[in-house]
Amino acid sequence: MTKALVISIDGLGGDHAPSAVVDGLEIAAARLPDVRFLLHGPQAEMEAALAAKPSLSGVTEIRHVAGRIGMDVKPAQALRQGRDTSMWNAIAAVENDEAQVCVSGGNTGALLAISMMRLRRMEGVHRPALVANWPTMKGGFAAVLDVGATVEAEAEQLVEFAIMGAAFHRAVHNVARPTVGLLNVGSEDEKGHEEIRAAARLIRERAIDIDFKGFIEGDDIGKGVVDVVVTDGFTGNVALKTAEGTARMVGHFLRESLGSGPFARIGAAIAYPALKKLKARMDPRAANGAMFLGLNGLVVKSHGGSDGLGFAAAVNVAARMARSHFRDEVAANLSRLSVQPAAAASAS
Amino acid sequence: MTKALVISIDGLGGDHAPSAVVDGLEIAAARLPDVRFLLHGPQAEMEAALAAKPSLSGVTEIRHVAGRIGMDVKPAQALRQGRDTSMWNAIAAVENDEAQVCVSGGNTGALLAISMMRLRRMEGVHRPALVANWPTMKGGFAAVLDVGATVEAEAEQLVEFAIMGAAFHRAVHNVARPTVGLLNVGSEDEKGHEEIRAAARLIRERAIDIDFKGFIEGDDIGKGVVDVVVTDGFTGNVALKTAEGTARMVGHFLRESLGSGPFARIGAAIAYPALKKLKARMDPRAANGAMFLGLNGLVVKSHGGSDGLGFAAAVNVAARMARSHFRDEVAANLSRLSVQPAAAASAS
Repeated sequence: MTKALVISIDGLGGDHAPSAVVDGLEIAAARLPDVRFLLHGPQAEMEAALAAKPSLSGVTEIRHVAGRIGMDVKPAQALRQGRDTSMWNAIAAVENDEAQVCVSGGNTGALLAISMMRLRRMEGVHRPALVANWPTMKGGFAAVLDVGATVEAEAEQLVEFAIMGAAFHRAVHNVARPTVGLLNVGSEDEKGHEEIRAAARLIRERAIDIDFKGFIEGDDIGKGVVDVVVTDGFTGNVALKTAEGTARMVGHFLRESLGSGPFARIGAAIAYPALKKLKARMDPRAANGAMFLGLNGLVVKSHGGSDGLGFAAAVNVAARMARSHFRDEVAANLSRLSVQPAAAASAS
Repeated sequence: MTKALVISIDGLGGDHAPSAVVDGLEIAAARLPDVRFLLHGPQAEMEAALAAKPSLSGVTEIRHVAGRIGMDVKPAQALRQGRDTSMWNAIAAVENDEAQVCVSGGNTGALLAISMMRLRRMEGVHRPALVANWPTMKGGFAAVLDVGATVEAEAEQLVEFAIMGAAFHRAVHNVARPTVGLLNVGSEDEKGHEEIRAAARLIRERAIDIDFKGFIEGDDIGKGVVDVVVTDGFTGNVALKTAEGTARMVGHFLRESLGSGPFARIGAAIAYPALKKLKARMDPRAANGAMFLGLNGLVVKSHGGSDGLGFAAAVNVAARMARSHFRDEVAANLSRLSVQPAAAASAS
């Protein structure tokens, strides 16, 4: 467990790179002994960013590359023109086994496209998934996938997401046997799309080794009813952005109310530490570190607007995944999915 | 505009019927002169509920019917066994032109199934939609549809939803020319499901008379980026429930934070009027009154758990719709949808 871990970093990914990146590495290095970083970016710019971070000097190696993939570049363009960029080289370091995991705050579509091309899909996985950490009322996080990598998912792909999501949650959040639910519009067996109903049947018939709780609804995600929420990339992306928008709206209403008169302002000032604690609990930085699952290599997506604290959270997710048995657990369950059990064959 | 309006009421619909129902009618009657109610339910039970509501005695007529549709009854069962129930008879009063609109707080699936059977689809509408009022940061409401009536929607059906949503929003929220957006996972033309892209092309090619703003994302709903948000019933239902769950989660965190120590509690007490105002702004009762669109008759769904104030909001939606030109506006735009313009025919 204490073998040195090498994490490949996109030094130019995100709105505040490279300063937010090296801030994040500094925080992460203090928490994670035995970790080394390969920092991809222009030599001079990376050296300048690292100058004020003495704690990183012994554990960080700069890999010079001049180019950067812009936040608005389309995936196809990134694949054609991206070779001499920090993102491409950060991923290539995982492909070449120089690093065990890559972290980038860059353009999501480009990151997925390059990761798919360089790392390819794991055997038995048909489509990759992007998994997000979703804060719940219980105080922890639910893993929600897919949130945007695979817009349309068939039943078998949803089962693959369930398998990968459970292994991810176990690795990152230390839950021995995470519970898994399929996102639907009702909890009854006959509700929703055919693919979702078929996925539920497959999980049960093929004896997939996950703690499957059946269908859940949108309001169950925040309640923490299950640890892993499985859905297609379209629905997951809409749900995630709708939740972010709602949290922002409530925060906006709260600020307006607490600024709406002298008593409100005095009360808010007295309750300030409590309100600060509330803000910390809703802090999206704590949930930072989405991950592409289903590739022959680990790639973590940090939020583009994140600061150093958020980037450090993404590095933490990367380290936990790299040190987990994710790959073996997923492979074992995928082999169950591919075998049609004799007993269930006639019933399916 | 001051012609007497007759509203048909399901006296047994909802968790707190009939008391929440008659509480709601009392509030609504004070706001809406020239409105009469047909109250469907068991004579004795309805009389008892009305006994303490003198303001309703002149404007409410009880229509005796003994049966009630339970909250857990499946739609198919409601169709087979529902004839002697308050819900069925409340809808039948609209079918028979005794009332211009019906309001029920009962079982949503049963209400939709019976409404579809008795009132049938409007000419030119392929599938009905359930439209919800969604509070926005701007202080008003967005109309979001479909939130659960039609789980899978093709391109033409999404365009029908857009047409009906715009007419609904104009009628209920008094906006002369509501803006309309299609819910998607990105704002670029090539993003999302093919049906959504095809719907956007149809709206533009067929010169549908709505103020179409293209694609929006989940976090744009709460920002109030558009007045009308169009999506299929699966996605809309997940988004609505996810938003409700998120708002509850933030409220839960806020209460926990403000109860977490003496300063927090003192501050919260001083800021109490402001926090109460916040609660009022987030009050789901103000947004009550979802509506089935696309039938030959108007049916409003009040939330099953709503109290009198919420039920009154639903009655208000019903009155506004019944007095609007919804039907003519929708018919005019549907005729545009069905005509393939010569200029666009080759490009489509």
